[in-house]
Amino acid sequence: MAQNGTSSGHPIATLEASLLPRLPSSSPILFAAKKSKNLSFETIASAISRSEVATAALFYGQAQATEEDIANLAKVLDIPESKLRETELLSFPDRGRSIDMPPREPMIYRLYEIVQNYGYAFKGVINEKFGDGIMSAISFSTKVEKEEDDKGTWVVITLRGKWLPFTRF
Amino acid sequence: MAQNGTSSGHPIATLEASLLPRLPSSSPILFAAKKSKNLSFETIASAISRSEVATAALFYGQAQATEEDIANLAKVLDIPESKLRETELLSFPDRGRSIDMPPREPMIYRLYEIVQNYGYAFKGVINEKFGDGIMSAISFSTKVEKEEDDKGTWVVITLRGKWLPFTRF
Amino acid sequence: MAQNGTSSGHPIATLEASLLPRLPSSSPILFAAKKSKNLSFETIASAISRSEVATAALFYGQAQATEEDIANLAKVLDIPESKLRETELLSFPDRGRSIDMPPREPMIYRLYEIVQNYGYAFKGVINEKFGDGIMSAISFSTKVEKEEDDKGTWVVITLRGKWLPFTRF
Amino acid sequence: MAQNGTSSGHPIATLEASLLPRLPSSSPILFAAKKSKNLSFETIASAISRSEVATAALFYGQAQATEEDIANLAKVLDIPESKLRETELLSFPDRGRSIDMPPREPMIYRLYEIVQNYGYAFKGVINEKFGDGIMSAISFSTKVEKEEDDKGTWVVITLRGKWLPFTRF
Amino acid sequence: MAQNGTSSGHPIATLEASLLPRLPSSSPILFAAKKSKNLSFETIASAISRSEVATAALFYGQAQATEEDIANLAKVLDIPESKLRETELLSFPDRGRSIDMPPREPMIYRLYEIVQNYGYAFKGVINEKFGDGIMSAISFSTKVEKEEDDKGTWVVITLRGKWLPFTRF
Amino acid sequence: MAQNGTSSGHPIATLEASLLPRLPSSSPILFAAKKSKNLSFETIASAISRSEVATAALFYGQAQATEEDIANLAKVLDIPESKLRETELLSFPDRGRSIDMPPREPMIYRLYEIVQNYGYAFKGVINEKFGDGIMSAISFSTKVEKEEDDKGTWVVITLRGKWLPFTRF
Amino acid sequence: MAQNGTSSGHPIATLEASLLPRLPSSSPILFAAKKSKNLSFETIASAISRSEVATAALFYGQAQATEEDIANLAKVLDIPESKLRETELLSFPDRGRSIDMPPREPMIYRLYEIVQNYGYAFKGVINEKFGDGIMSAISFSTKVEKEEDDKGTWVVITLRGKWLPFTRF
Amino acid sequence: MAQNGTSSGHPIATLEASLLPRLPSSSPILFAAKKSKNLSFETIASAISRSEVATAALFYGQAQATEEDIANLAKVLDIPESKLRETELLSFPDRGRSIDMPPREPMIYRLYEIVQNYGYAFKGVINEKFGDGIMSAISFSTKVEKEEDDKGTWVVITLRGKWLPFTRF
Amino acid sequence: MAQNGTSSGHPIATLEASLLPRLPSSSPILFAAKKSKNLSFETIASAISRSEVATAALFYGQAQATEEDIANLAKVLDIPESKLRETELLSFPDRGRSIDMPPREPMIYRLYEIVQNYGYAFKGVINEKFGDGIMSAISFSTKVEKEEDDKGTWVVITLRGKWLPFTRF
Amino acid sequence: MAQNGTSSGHPIATLEASLLPRLPSSSPILFAAKKSKNLSFETIASAISRSEVATAALFYGQAQATEEDIANLAKVLDIPESKLRETELLSFPDRGRSIDMPPREPMIYRLYEIVQNYGYAFKGVINEKFGDGIMSAISFSTKVEKEEDDKGTWVVITLRGKWLPFTRF
Repeated sequence: MAQNGTSSGHPIATLEASLLPRLPSSSPILFAAKKSKNLSFETIASAISRSEVATAALFYGQAQATEEDIANLAKVLDIPESKLRETELLSFPDRGRSIDMPPREPMIYRLYEIVQNYGYAFKGVINEKFGDGIMSAISFSTKVEKEEDDKGTWVVITLRGKWLPFTRF
Repeated sequence: MAQNGTSSGHPIATLEASLLPRLPSSSPILFAAKKSKNLSFETIASAISRSEVATAALFYGQAQATEEDIANLAKVLDIPESKLRETELLSFPDRGRSIDMPPREPMIYRLYEIVQNYGYAFKGVINEKFGDGIMSAISFSTKVEKEEDDKGTWVVITLRGKWLPFTRF
Repeated sequence: MAQNGTSSGHPIATLEASLLPRLPSSSPILFAAKKSKNLSFETIASAISRSEVATAALFYGQAQATEEDIANLAKVLDIPESKLRETELLSFPDRGRSIDMPPREPMIYRLYEIVQNYGYAFKGVINEKFGDGIMSAISFSTKVEKEEDDKGTWVVITLRGKWLPFTRF
Repeated sequence: MAQNGTSSGHPIATLEASLLPRLPSSSPILFAAKKSKNLSFETIASAISRSEVATAALFYGQAQATEEDIANLAKVLDIPESKLRETELLSFPDRGRSIDMPPREPMIYRLYEIVQNYGYAFKGVINEKFGDGIMSAISFSTKVEKEEDDKGTWVVITLRGKWLPFTRF
Repeated sequence: MAQNGTSSGHPIATLEASLLPRLPSSSPILFAAKKSKNLSFETIASAISRSEVATAALFYGQAQATEEDIANLAKVLDIPESKLRETELLSFPDRGRSIDMPPREPMIYRLYEIVQNYGYAFKGVINEKFGDGIMSAISFSTKVEKEEDDKGTWVVITLRGKWLPFTRF
Repeated sequence: MAQNGTSSGHPIATLEASLLPRLPSSSPILFAAKKSKNLSFETIASAISRSEVATAALFYGQAQATEEDIANLAKVLDIPESKLRETELLSFPDRGRSIDMPPREPMIYRLYEIVQNYGYAFKGVINEKFGDGIMSAISFSTKVEKEEDDKGTWVVITLRGKWLPFTRF
Repeated sequence: MAQNGTSSGHPIATLEASLLPRLPSSSPILFAAKKSKNLSFETIASAISRSEVATAALFYGQAQATEEDIANLAKVLDIPESKLRETELLSFPDRGRSIDMPPREPMIYRLYEIVQNYGYAFKGVINEKFGDGIMSAISFSTKVEKEEDDKGTWVVITLRGKWLPFTRF
Repeated sequence: MAQNGTSSGHPIATLEASLLPRLPSSSPILFAAKKSKNLSFETIASAISRSEVATAALFYGQAQATEEDIANLAKVLDIPESKLRETELLSFPDRGRSIDMPPREPMIYRLYEIVQNYGYAFKGVINEKFGDGIMSAISFSTKVEKEEDDKGTWVVITLRGKWLPFTRF
Repeated sequence: MAQNGTSSGHPIATLEASLLPRLPSSSPILFAAKKSKNLSFETIASAISRSEVATAALFYGQAQATEEDIANLAKVLDIPESKLRETELLSFPDRGRSIDMPPREPMIYRLYEIVQNYGYAFKGVINEKFGDGIMSAISFSTKVEKEEDDKGTWVVITLRGKWLPFTRF
Repeated sequence: MAQNGTSSGHPIATLEASLLPRLPSSSPILFAAKKSKNLSFETIASAISRSEVATAALFYGQAQATEEDIANLAKVLDIPESKLRETELLSFPDRGRSIDMPPREPMIYRLYEIVQNYGYAFKGVINEKFGDGIMSAISFSTKVEKEEDDKGTWVVITLRGKWLPFTRF
């Protein structure tokens, strides 16, 4: 049986009502079950064998579920599979509309600020290391880790994307 | 003597003229020397004992130099120290104005897209792991690495920021 | 009887709930039937003798249906003709409001990025080939094709629009 | 010796003064030579063995030149190689800033309008044909062709991009 | 009895559901009756002795109705007068909110593009003909006509506004 | 010899300095000559056999000149032809950038307001008269006329554009 | 008993449905009663001993009501006081959200245009007359008057605000 | 001889350098003379027999000068008439571009805030007093006055514009 | 028992209906109880041992509640704890979406104006006092106080945030 | 003689070149002298008997100088008084244009974020304490202080503005 709450002791993340008009119909169903069973993304991720961020992205309608994901989600969240199948979960996400940019949420704004401040620095370093191209945000994965040292607690986000060189034509 | 060109064999990054009105007066001086001596950010970073991204950020006016940085930059770039001291390098950067958001440059846009698509997922996972707060973009460091596997070449960006919980008041 | 699912084996496209306020009343009716009968745009396009993109545009309220289209759609989707006639399908589409620009959906953004990066290059080449004028987006058709070669799978989009020279007056 | 003017008999494309602040320093040099020698993009493309659109993109600072491109451009445009090497041509383009979006130029706006009107239709059809992913605008090529039939003259633009599926993580 | 359909044989214009939140409560009532009785703006305009464009503007909540208009609309549309009186029709329109600018609808965008491209040319010519002032959009009328010649079919829009000179003070 | 001033007795239109960065290099040359010789657009239009609005559009860089236009402009404005040939006049205009939208100039704003207020009314009437399509702003001409009646002076602008039906595909 | 209709013979102002989501819950209640009893702002203002503009501002949720206003409004509008007390009328208005700026309504736009055209002229004259500071929009009143002369009818709006000098610190 | 300084004892208004790119070439000439001779708008207005606000609008390029204004301005400001004639003063102002909206200047913002807060209240009251139409901002004059009472000093701005009813057509 | 009304004698703050779509589901519940019991933020803050501003932020969904806050809120507001637990109160706030920026509310705009006018002055002074870094808005508290002196009544807002120096990396 | 550098040991604040087009002509003069003499705002503020923030605001063109300020600035900065008198320092500042909002500079953004997150909380608390009105940003002063405690270093900003109640009219 799935673990109650988060391993950190913090409350679980739930869905704010005012965000609903920006999300697919699967989101309120998934979040309601998550809240009712008091499950963390970590626990759910483990139950569906996906990463934590990808799991959260599924909840926010920003990632596609497979048949197996549906089965696993149904089990861990105690939702009838048929109810999940009626939503957009198995179809193609309409990504990017959950947030207005610039993001007003302070946590998300910090990531935006990193792009704003270091954007050209990243581009310069990446161009010199890899050539003329981009880091893919599609052929891509990411994770969040916690580090502790004597200076405090650190959030470490890793972004890993395929290198795609511009085609010469 | 500093190594010529990049270790990857790609050209070095230079400064595009149309970006000039958005940058401090130090940027064209630094980039002109970088180009003339054909030095990579990697080489310069090593010469000034800072990370590659921080070094590039210095060139784009998004980071502060110390006295020692000035001395080292002057040496590796063959610029009189006094000329560097006349610029804004030692003072406080006016960050964030080098890029118009949303970024139009494809490489930088991909980072923006990651924030747009995964913003709430990052927030959800981070909140559950750390509580109510943010990852600092100030008490922060970042690096770019290259990985190769049988699926291709990968850009790996690590973002490491201090965890700051909201004050209860 | 219409073929179940897509010929590619991928799921069919369905309608995301949060898009509804931007679409005409015909869209949820058409998509509900498409989902319930598990039909691809390819299958429906073939049943109504229109191109795939035009068929999808009908579903998103961006193209006008003829009487014959209504009859064919009613048949393939198993919807009473009268129900379709009550919608805006036969009238004049109010185009362009389904998407906020810049598009936040990564697939659609790539098309936008092509315009952003190559816009002036297209204009320069077209002006030299055709003179002073535009490629019509009205007297216009388009198609999507798949190509496979040893470098991978390719999406090929063809845009074909009438040449309209500026009137001299 | 390069052919004078365009093969269509239309004037060649030149650079409008008011666009200069948005372009790299290579653009006015290339366009001045193009104008002075009255060369079309077609002629130049043929001289440097690149496609017409890629050649125009080089002129607008939206594509990277190789050493060989520099040599060929220098020859066909009668510009000293050293002068081209002083520009950003061999370095990494800072793409996407030549145009303000939405584009105000009528020819470029029509392409934007196609994305605005058919964006979701393209996404729907592509998702069903290819799955969850995007058409790359990086691993990408494009061309412009002219067709004539009894209904008039047609501009045909082909966009060909690599299919990139979203990574499951 | 009012003529069924349009004199051109095209379908009548109806109201798209997604536009409703931008319109007064009179619009859905008027459009529902127009659709149910299959009446063109031409027919209704004739029945209420107003121009076609003004009639359509009434339907979209952009013009004020008189008592007589109400009586005539009630008759031709077969709506109880009292029902029309309950709406905003007799009061003062809250103009300009039916469209987001720039307009995304291709037909309306073309009018916007004319202003964008020829705005200063209109101003220059009008200033020289009339002096320092404006063409009123309030003391104003407009009409749409069709012309046919051997080059095709032409839409002719006439804008007629009172000349208002700037007051010298 | 060209007539001095305008036939209306109003001053001629000249170029405001702050508009220069938005215009091609031909504009200040043309306007300087127009001012120095005190010529109206009416006089110049007559000398180059084009309409007044098209002539003003040439001055604002929003229309293309032919070889004959150049010869005529050179003559009426007393500018060496070679000087005009060095500008963008014979090439392809980069239209639409002379004005920021919404226009802040009161005269031009009134045209914008007409689109904002009557946009859907025009679309509705045009759709019923012509079907599903647009009025071309490319295969297009326009003129400005003055009418006087007992209610005052009226500006009459006629917009005449080719009807373009949407292609069925 | 309150006078029916307006003293000018024009219809009374009512509330447009599409404005509702921008207004407090008191607005539809007040406007419904105003419409039902056919009362002008002039009549209501007189009944509640406030100015006409302040009265209209109360209806649009842009001014605070006192206990006495509630009693008077209840009486003149025939609404139970308790019903008015349940609304936001006695609390603190959340001003400024009823209009999107720039205003699209032509009457309101004219006021905006006056600020746009004469803003710096007002500032220059006010600075010279009063020093460095502002005219308060808070310690402020305004009124609308009608003047007739042989040139026509004039709207006269008076804005009267306290002079606030910048503090020297 | 013109009075030195302002009658209020406050400094005169001068031109801020950063505003120059938004103004016609006449503005720096007029303001330089105003500063050099230390003249207030009040003094200049009196010398040219125009109102203070109109005089300031002339200086900011937002009003047209007559031949007589030129003569008077030349005299009071001690500028050769010919120098003023070379500017745009006698031609048609390109109004509205001196300020970015929303205005950031606190004094001008207060006027904007009045429109934002009381816009609908003004419209409602004006509609009831005058009918369906607008207060002209063209056939318009305005003045600034100072009032003192025991509550302090008051700025009184009067806006007086012609009433223009919407044409019924 | 909690004190009725505010200690200042002013009405209590309540929730404006039009703000609801921007707030979490807890806000209408909390504000309804606050209104029904006529409690000020001061009274509630005292009952839950938090500061007034933090308490108001809880009501607007901009701060996180602890278990103890829930218990205290339930008691002072007479709401069942379970009802509060069903809301987002214990979870992580989605901050920043309650206000559109620039704020249109005059009181909130004044704070925005302070940032706009004094932003660089604050930065300059803070940089010189503290070095290169920021004042945290997360590790942060704030309070509002009233001061009276012979010049009037003063609002004093104190912002207290942790100093965070930029990491050197 | 004025103290060299800052009392904190941090470098002094200087002017970034890219900010120049947004500032009055006095700013580069003042900052050049400040840099050349290595003076902090604290030292200069003390020399001119104004607060640090007001002094910095003078340097950024956001505050007005008196005759005495000019004399003191000239002395401490070693600039001829006449040179300062030629600038806008004694005239009326054109405030608010030094920063684009939202601010991109991280330090200034934090202040903006405080308004964004706590705006309604401030309004609610202030309304209950003071009534319906605003805190003036004109009759206003502010200061920055440093506090140290065992949790670290704190920036304390105090905003003190006059309370202005809305006029009842």
